Amino acid sequence: MKNFDINEDPHRRFNPLINEWVLVSPHRAKRPWQGQNETIATEALPKYDPTCYLCPGNVRANGLNNPNYESSFVFENDFAAMKQDEIIFEEDIKHTFFKAKPEQGISRVVCFSPRHDLTLPEMEIDGIENIIRTWQKEYTDLGNIKYINHVQIFENKGGVMGCSNPHPHGQIWAQSSLPTQVEKTQNSLKSYFDKNNRTLLEDYLQAELKTGERIVIENDHFVALVPFWAIWPYETMIISKRALNKITDFTAEEVNAFATILKQLTIKYDNLFSTSFPYSSGIHQAPTDGLEHPEWHFHMHFYPPLLRSATVKKFMVGYEMLGESQRDITPEKSAEILRQQADVHYKSTSK
Amino acid sequence: MKNFDINEDPHRRFNPLINEWVLVSPHRAKRPWQGQNETIATEALPKYDPTCYLCPGNVRANGLNNPNYESSFVFENDFAAMKQDEIIFEEDIKHTFFKAKPEQGISRVVCFSPRHDLTLPEMEIDGIENIIRTWQKEYTDLGNIKYINHVQIFENKGGVMGCSNPHPHGQIWAQSSLPTQVEKTQNSLKSYFDKNNRTLLEDYLQAELKTGERIVIENDHFVALVPFWAIWPYETMIISKRALNKITDFTAEEVNAFATILKQLTIKYDNLFSTSFPYSSGIHQAPTDGLEHPEWHFHMHFYPPLLRSATVKKFMVGYEMLGESQRDITPEKSAEILRQQADVHYKSTSK
Ligand SMILES: O=P(O)(O)O[C@H]1O[C@H](CO)[C@@H](O)[C@H](O)[C@H]1O
Ligand SMILES: O=P(O)(O)O[C@H]1O[C@H](CO)[C@@H](O)[C@H](O)[C@H]1O
Repeated sequence: MKNFDINEDPHRRFNPLINEWVLVSPHRAKRPWQGQNETIATEALPKYDPTCYLCPGNVRANGLNNPNYESSFVFENDFAAMKQDEIIFEEDIKHTFFKAKPEQGISRVVCFSPRHDLTLPEMEIDGIENIIRTWQKEYTDLGNIKYINHVQIFENKGGVMGCSNPHPHGQIWAQSSLPTQVEKTQNSLKSYFDKNNRTLLEDYLQAELKTGERIVIENDHFVALVPFWAIWPYETMIISKRALNKITDFTAEEVNAFATILKQLTIKYDNLFSTSFPYSSGIHQAPTDGLEHPEWHFHMHFYPPLLRSATVKKFMVGYEMLGESQRDITPEKSAEILRQQADVHYKSTSK
Repeated sequence: MKNFDINEDPHRRFNPLINEWVLVSPHRAKRPWQGQNETIATEALPKYDPTCYLCPGNVRANGLNNPNYESSFVFENDFAAMKQDEIIFEEDIKHTFFKAKPEQGISRVVCFSPRHDLTLPEMEIDGIENIIRTWQKEYTDLGNIKYINHVQIFENKGGVMGCSNPHPHGQIWAQSSLPTQVEKTQNSLKSYFDKNNRTLLEDYLQAELKTGERIVIENDHFVALVPFWAIWPYETMIISKRALNKITDFTAEEVNAFATILKQLTIKYDNLFSTSFPYSSGIHQAPTDGLEHPEWHFHMHFYPPLLRSATVKKFMVGYEMLGESQRDITPEKSAEILRQQADVHYKSTSK
């Protein structure tokens, strides 16, 4: 019998945002790896690629030409997962097991830059500010459409995350329903707010700033940290210091601070394994259902798959799919490693 | 405005086992693929590999020798995610956000066969029956340990599922808590049973057998089907016809019928893309907490990642991680395609 040591002993941690547990196995990072290695793109990319369907002036799959855009550029996804058609539907209540309903939605692609070879960590702050303003505009425009109740802004970066084109871009899927993960989060945020009259993330952020051990970056308006309940090895979350509902509540100063922390965090990510660090990221914020949502607190999740190196990722497979998410390194250790990364991009120092 | 056509229009479906929705985009399989391709192992494997730590007689990482086993062989995982140590722990109730507790558990590896080159679809029925009896024994032995309340039997197959060794094997993670996914399932099963005095899967199976459109294989005691709410392109579930609680309730006839359906299903999987089909699979059954669990109904999940070919998988990434699972082909179409696959393994026909 020994006393519990959270840095050494296997344990479970609770995620109050979605009410789920994660299994943490601090000792397990030591096991040898004989499994699959990811391939990484190492050739330098050109500033403009004539075969890229996202580069300015080029033709897309549907035959349309991209404009010669100079900052960011938004278009409707040619292979959208949802459609805008209004569908007539009467629910068949006899179907206990076959419950389905049509979903209306719009998918858009957001090119971050005309430059084929740049990613967030390599862009200038004003270029990133411009992306943030584009997200604000899309959140407003899409959110104003009567049947759109939720706008999901996200980015898949890197081949290992299913991204088919290195040209820097993200996506927006806007739809009539609250997606499953967002609904879970909303339920948790709401029950906390109803009880405490403060947002859950406001109080969580205070607690994190007090201990400091999971903080990666802090500036005047945002904090990037490894959540206590992170499932991915280097998962992080950017939380606004003010209890903002949504991206359109940002002041000009907050736009700048958010751009800065995005650049700094992604630089640290790239520096970690000296590679263009893959991840899926996305913003969670108030739904656009026309209701007040004082419980919502703007935050952005980063879910990067890499575990040990540029080519060895964490596999969320058998036990994780059937049982629960499991991690092999503590969030505290990951935060420490990320904090130690240089603030200058490895490519610019190596020149 | 048009009437809802579940075979054509984007829609959401509800999974009553875990109370979550999935977004279905039937039209989306048509989009071109320019993203990452998986590498597949194509060389023929030897019957015995002197460098394999799972082959009979060979040495494992911890220096121990495997016995010269002739059917299946079970050993403790040398790099277990949990430990058996009893840990003294007093919950700190002040920690609203930092909720953690130690977890005790045991991980074992189950070698399915001494043959390095065989997988389930290529094994004889009596070899598979032997695996089932090994699972029964492990479920009993581990379940009898006082602090073990749940026994998760699973298999990760293929490099794309994080499996580091082609030698046919599965794993068992037994632990003191109910893992997140199992707890969700148990809650759903229990509330259904309390209301109807029948198991949810008993009634679901009846409804599925009536329409037939998602059935892949049926024998006297088991059915393999693509669940109405499947998230992976070729996800399936094997359900026992009797409302059995657990694998140790099988009659000898049921052991044989389960071995047969396992072989047939994995043959169809291999035939689909003429490849050793990767997946994570696992059994969900009654916890070993010493309580009665009339709500539990034995079933086995198969989560295979492939979508279009042996090298193109479905990426569950940005939208899926932040929003909800999304699929590009209907479960009905997938079931039809699997049903059409030959019942003889492609390797044996090509000889
Ligand atoms: O136990 P293995 O085969 O070393 O590891 C594999 O399966 C485990 C259980 O699903 C996962 O946690 C690992 O990420 C995966 O690589
Ligand atoms: O939209 P894309 O880039 O074609 O596709 C990628 O992102 C989507 C949204 O996360 C996923 O559904 C796809 O599986 C993935 O390949």
